Amino acid sequence: VLAAPAIAQSMPEVKWRCASSFPKSLDTIYGGGEFISKRVAALTDGKFQIRIFGAGEIVPAFGTVDAVQQGTVECTHTAGYYFVGKNKTFAFDTTVPFGMNQRQQNAWMYWGGGLKLQREFLRDYNIISFPAGNTGTQMGGWFKKPVKTVADLKGLKMRIAGLGGEVMSRLGAIPQQIAGGDIYPALEKGVIDAAEWVGPYDDEKLGFYKIAPYYYYPGWWEACSMYSMYVNIKEWEKLPKQYQEALASACAECNIDMMAEYDYKNPIALQSLIKNGVKLQSYSTDIMKAASTAAFEMYEEEAGKNPSFKKIYEPWKKFRNDQMLWNKVAEQTLMSFMLTNPVK
Amino acid sequence: VLAAPAIAQSMPEVKWRCASSFPKSLDTIYGGGEFISKRVAALTDGKFQIRIFGAGEIVPAFGTVDAVQQGTVECTHTAGYYFVGKNKTFAFDTTVPFGMNQRQQNAWMYWGGGLKLQREFLRDYNIISFPAGNTGTQMGGWFKKPVKTVADLKGLKMRIAGLGGEVMSRLGAIPQQIAGGDIYPALEKGVIDAAEWVGPYDDEKLGFYKIAPYYYYPGWWEACSMYSMYVNIKEWEKLPKQYQEALASACAECNIDMMAEYDYKNPIALQSLIKNGVKLQSYSTDIMKAASTAAFEMYEEEAGKNPSFKKIYEPWKKFRNDQMLWNKVAEQTLMSFMLTNPVK
Repeated sequence: VLAAPAIAQSMPEVKWRCASSFPKSLDTIYGGGEFISKRVAALTDGKFQIRIFGAGEIVPAFGTVDAVQQGTVECTHTAGYYFVGKNKTFAFDTTVPFGMNQRQQNAWMYWGGGLKLQREFLRDYNIISFPAGNTGTQMGGWFKKPVKTVADLKGLKMRIAGLGGEVMSRLGAIPQQIAGGDIYPALEKGVIDAAEWVGPYDDEKLGFYKIAPYYYYPGWWEACSMYSMYVNIKEWEKLPKQYQEALASACAECNIDMMAEYDYKNPIALQSLIKNGVKLQSYSTDIMKAASTAAFEMYEEEAGKNPSFKKIYEPWKKFRNDQMLWNKVAEQTLMSFMLTNPVK
Repeated sequence: VLAAPAIAQSMPEVKWRCASSFPKSLDTIYGGGEFISKRVAALTDGKFQIRIFGAGEIVPAFGTVDAVQQGTVECTHTAGYYFVGKNKTFAFDTTVPFGMNQRQQNAWMYWGGGLKLQREFLRDYNIISFPAGNTGTQMGGWFKKPVKTVADLKGLKMRIAGLGGEVMSRLGAIPQQIAGGDIYPALEKGVIDAAEWVGPYDDEKLGFYKIAPYYYYPGWWEACSMYSMYVNIKEWEKLPKQYQEALASACAECNIDMMAEYDYKNPIALQSLIKNGVKLQSYSTDIMKAASTAAFEMYEEEAGKNPSFKKIYEPWKKFRNDQMLWNKVAEQTLMSFMLTNPVK
């Protein structure tokens, strides 16, 4: 390999700070920020440096949108749905219960008009966004006792974030917002009866299986979970064009790489969890149907009173339903066959 | 947006030629090469230019590996499985019958060691490779008459490429290699009884539905179809480091973007085909089971006599089976529920 050409002098040095909403212990998702930083540096001969800070290091996990909006930091690697308290429209950037899977979400964002709509919404926060990572369909959480029917959810205290919590609440459960590191003690002490986090790889590290052995699937509130790089628009506009392109490419690359990382790591962790005696349980159709109904009732209500939500929800819903029609034909039929006809 | 910094003078101008294996009429896949070319230019301030040529313009579609190996062109945007005549090991770069879906293939290539193994194999051809596009699960082809059992395949002349053709042959059919533009007349004149191409979007343009109305799914020989950028290693090593990074990022970005494009376009085309009277048919379990058995028999035979095939096949098979275990839990359960419980 030849040495890099002598371009260092003429490309300006730019140093940014990125406040991640994720703790460093969540190496996969937090690692997405680090991945972007490395790729941007590689693409700009080391001249555009983005330093990533873990949640709470310089900005609290859920304060990063404010920080970017105000220009305290240039950008945040985050999940839009952490900010549904500001406006539920943020959720479409990440996922909503019974939303689209990872491929469908990418199709919506890159080709279906989703990213354009989301960016229009985010202009009010001085933000331009880039899809930047995904977990795929998550797991449905850890329970101390089995839950078979909607009635079993009544009064159940569950750590569950975002709109999934609101659907759980409509089904009678009591959703709790608890940061990752505090879930285990809360579950151990009986402050909560159940907790969802991500999937096998991340969940195993937190050790939930030791105290809540019923591991439910699927995480119907996260058919996928897409992360984003939110960048202050003024800072974005100050970047040389080439650095803008580098950041955009790095985010797209992160978007595909994180999904591959999870798909690599989750099967290994799942097998390890099963060896540790975890009891895999599927949510009953009773619960899934009630949850799906409650979710879409919630969206319709929100669309009736929140114009920015409605503006994305309506085309999103049509796009989702068209996606399902297509998925059912080729993808689903073949995968279903391969899953029921294992190869020895 | 500020003007680009004055770096033009110090970054060398590099001009490459890329021989695509795809005709320009296949705008999605051929377009992947154009996408990479545009992104590389954007990432290098226009200094690294890759000109894309359609199949046959300067190199025949299936001659591009030879051309890259000999250095006639610097690179080709192609499908590895076009070159199974040289060595069946090429197929793992793209897909094999009853292989992995798009996400699983990405996980295998980027994280599971697949790309490393494939590059070791390709060194003998003076090639370094980059995943660069995908179609997802393809459709199973157009038939003049329904095929219900393996017996119905006997003597059936079908246009089908690569290892899928070899499996079809083991089931009694007579596979034919016919270039895209020649399929329609062959089907019309009765030279062949059936033909597979890609999926709804690309198939609709070629008009097969007018003369072979039975549209089968799934394309069990292409659970996904991954395309690659094959680059002459000597030319690669001559590139400035920053240009190498730009090309790598552009290919990764193409890999995610093409899949999103297909997922956007296919549902629209499928609905249009259905309106045009196409008869959607699922392959029977009888045919699928026989095909799956024949496929893995073929792999075992090949592994027994081809060391380079064996070296990839064995870890690939283990990886595939672990992927299926995980997919079955979260992804499949939720998607299956959403497909059977449509939202109005």
